[in-house]
Amino acid sequence: MSPPSFKKTGPYLFALGVFPLFGEKIDYSLYVITDCRLCRGRSQEDVVEKAVRGGSTCIQLREKEVSVRKLYNMALALLEITRQRGAALIVNDRLDVALAAGADGVHLGQDDLPLPAARRIMPEGMVLGVSVDNVQQAQEAEAAGASYLGAGSVFATSTKPDAGSPIGVEAFAAICRSVRIPVVGIGGINAGNAGEVIKAGGAGVAVISAVVGAEDIKKAAQELSSEVSRARRLAKGEV
Amino acid sequence: MSPPSFKKTGPYLFALGVFPLFGEKIDYSLYVITDCRLCRGRSQEDVVEKAVRGGSTCIQLREKEVSVRKLYNMALALLEITRQRGAALIVNDRLDVALAAGADGVHLGQDDLPLPAARRIMPEGMVLGVSVDNVQQAQEAEAAGASYLGAGSVFATSTKPDAGSPIGVEAFAAICRSVRIPVVGIGGINAGNAGEVIKAGGAGVAVISAVVGAEDIKKAAQELSSEVSRARRLAKGEV
Repeated sequence: MSPPSFKKTGPYLFALGVFPLFGEKIDYSLYVITDCRLCRGRSQEDVVEKAVRGGSTCIQLREKEVSVRKLYNMALALLEITRQRGAALIVNDRLDVALAAGADGVHLGQDDLPLPAARRIMPEGMVLGVSVDNVQQAQEAEAAGASYLGAGSVFATSTKPDAGSPIGVEAFAAICRSVRIPVVGIGGINAGNAGEVIKAGGAGVAVISAVVGAEDIKKAAQELSSEVSRARRLAKGEV
Repeated sequence: MSPPSFKKTGPYLFALGVFPLFGEKIDYSLYVITDCRLCRGRSQEDVVEKAVRGGSTCIQLREKEVSVRKLYNMALALLEITRQRGAALIVNDRLDVALAAGADGVHLGQDDLPLPAARRIMPEGMVLGVSVDNVQQAQEAEAAGASYLGAGSVFATSTKPDAGSPIGVEAFAAICRSVRIPVVGIGGINAGNAGEVIKAGGAGVAVISAVVGAEDIKKAAQELSSEVSRARRLAKGEV
């Protein structure tokens, strides 16, 4: 028997506007993770508005130090911005907040809800992202229903000191080759090395400080976005 | 238009055994909140098994310092115990964990998900509890769809140092009179004062350390349970 799903409630959710906008068709090219602590005093909305204007295709709301109520209100506010501009909004860890706010997806770590448990309470088409740092985790996540993977740290990073030593571009490429779902590179990525991640098979690059901590957020997003596009053309042999 | 609900998925959830066991008919008489930090090295399962054997009718899983994956696994383990013994299991804060594990309910604080947002993603019959400390919050919570309230601190308590000064039995009684849903007293309750909470109109008493921190957990639960029953008979003029 197939697990229960929200299949039947789809029409209700659709009618209310609390439904996954993208299904499994999110563009992961420039995946920006928010973290108020790195926003240099600027509001989440301000930062996300500028990031999306600069070319961010996907926003992950990740705030560890705010109340759930505040996180929920942030998700609603960011959804107004992302929807208007055709970007996706993914909520880190809190599937309940993602569901209640009608976000496009949720991102889970290896210590968060098990994927089958999460999938059981997610509507069809809602995106489920998972953090992995090796091929085994990647293949397990794919088999368990992940929509995409965040793999890394590709490079050394100071944003997440607990991320361990970087896995490097080769290991990242091996992860990309090992699964059929999109893999986004994360960790220490900037305009200078984003091309390597795409060349290695990445569906996009995930950044925090390189965008939300930049003095000119829109410009930082534009540079990364251009770099991803350029590397893609190169990879296809168009340049 | 009514908000989306899981009405349509009910049969699936039922067939899989991941459905609310009690609907809105939970017995709140002796509501024991788990907290591993107070369990004196004993396992959650051990503590809950003994509490339920001693007469606890409702268990709230509240663990702030474990990973979500661990919390989910705890919920599954505790559900095996509570189901077998006819008690209810409510998960604190994490509605996603409660939903995925198939717990009987979720308990939210004033800084957690807003009630209408929570209700929107809850199946019918799943219990929604809310912490309140005054009549206004109580009435708002009832209007917003709460199934029951946890009101307090009734007495001074050391378990939750941030709980503020106790509201006292009079204020607790006023909260009970102000709503039609069950109100459970919480904060500093023990076998010596549990009767006052029931006399004031409480549907039950919620305790942490008085049970999970007791040397003889089963006996502590039995004493509280007897006290609640005795106070109820007294209130009805049967004694």
